Amino acid sequence: MENTTWGDGAAWMNGKIVPISDAKISVLDWGLTHSDITYDVVQVWDGGFFRLDLHLERFMQSLLSSRLSVEQTSDDMRLILHRMVARSGLKRAYVAMVASRGVPLIPGTRDPRQCGNHFFAWCVPFVWVIPQDVAARGAHLHVSETVKRIPTDSVDPTIKNYMWGDFTRALFEAKDAGFDTAALLDQDGFLTEGPGFNIFAIFGNRLVTP
Amino acid sequence: MENTTWGDGAAWMNGKIVPISDAKISVLDWGLTHSDITYDVVQVWDGGFFRLDLHLERFMQSLLSSRLSVEQTSDDMRLILHRMVARSGLKRAYVAMVASRGVPLIPGTRDPRQCGNHFFAWCVPFVWVIPQDVAARGAHLHVSETVKRIPTDSVDPTIKNYMWGDFTRALFEAKDAGFDTAALLDQDGFLTEGPGFNIFAIFGNRLVTP
Repeated sequence: MENTTWGDGAAWMNGKIVPISDAKISVLDWGLTHSDITYDVVQVWDGGFFRLDLHLERFMQSLLSSRLSVEQTSDDMRLILHRMVARSGLKRAYVAMVASRGVPLIPGTRDPRQCGNHFFAWCVPFVWVIPQDVAARGAHLHVSETVKRIPTDSVDPTIKNYMWGDFTRALFEAKDAGFDTAALLDQDGFLTEGPGFNIFAIFGNRLVTP
Repeated sequence: MENTTWGDGAAWMNGKIVPISDAKISVLDWGLTHSDITYDVVQVWDGGFFRLDLHLERFMQSLLSSRLSVEQTSDDMRLILHRMVARSGLKRAYVAMVASRGVPLIPGTRDPRQCGNHFFAWCVPFVWVIPQDVAARGAHLHVSETVKRIPTDSVDPTIKNYMWGDFTRALFEAKDAGFDTAALLDQDGFLTEGPGFNIFAIFGNRLVTP
């Protein structure tokens, strides 16, 4: 079995590297039921990680800001990610590191300080947020007039999170109208970001980002 | 085994009733990674469901509004919930019905219309959102001055959802300051709701809700 590679991906769950199809979490985990979870994504391209240290640094900051505390150090995570990707056999991969609130340590409690926080990771074949053929011709971007980005005084966007309700609504609007993807404005009408990407613009010879 | 009851709870996953500890979903499911999921909760008290039809009706409406399509009809779900709770042996239970976007049917797609939506359900011993001893003395409610409820033009609160980032922030504030739970204001300063409960007030002989 050790010679078999896992083309669909692999995961590190509870201390073990497993095929991606075995990577599951409890339906009671607050990472699911409260979307109380943070993550980061790093790319592997031609067998090498791209800026892994910077992604680990940002992920550790997200844990701190979310008050999530896991057993693994940043160095442990680096080793886990390397071993997991190697085991998968993937040379170009989308690699996720995730920390979840977990389940209450005291049954029935609703106190987020009393949960068993935990770390896991997974990798799948590289994902193009904008498919290459679409990027080649230029993607058609729908800027929603009805759905607004979740404001920063509700959810802090500097902590990477899975609360994509606003993006999902805008994606349905976009796809229904024949666009490739969507972008959201904030409450004041300023452009923010899209589902899985930041936005930059070139004005003359200046690069500008919201 | 059929005579064993499951005091920690039970679940219905992929056509089977299983102990709650076996109820898991893929870490790739958009129900987790995009919080693209809806649910409803119904109580079982002394062996009977409380207003199950109304909860099923609201759940079916949430599916429709979320553009989630599952194999099971409302009647199928009613039967599943009854059988699952009976199998668990629980007489007083917190019973959840859930529908998730699932994983893409076309690998790598980011189109929410191209996913394998699925239904599951679970039950655990009854949960008091406010513990009985706290309710008896009166709960201390923290109204956050910093965190605002996610606005309706970002996420529609009439579709029950797991995007609790705003509540989690407010709960940490509340617990740190010695309060029992929290409530959130909207962007205009009006009271909305708390994590897991609605708010009503009595003014004179009038019952008022936000």
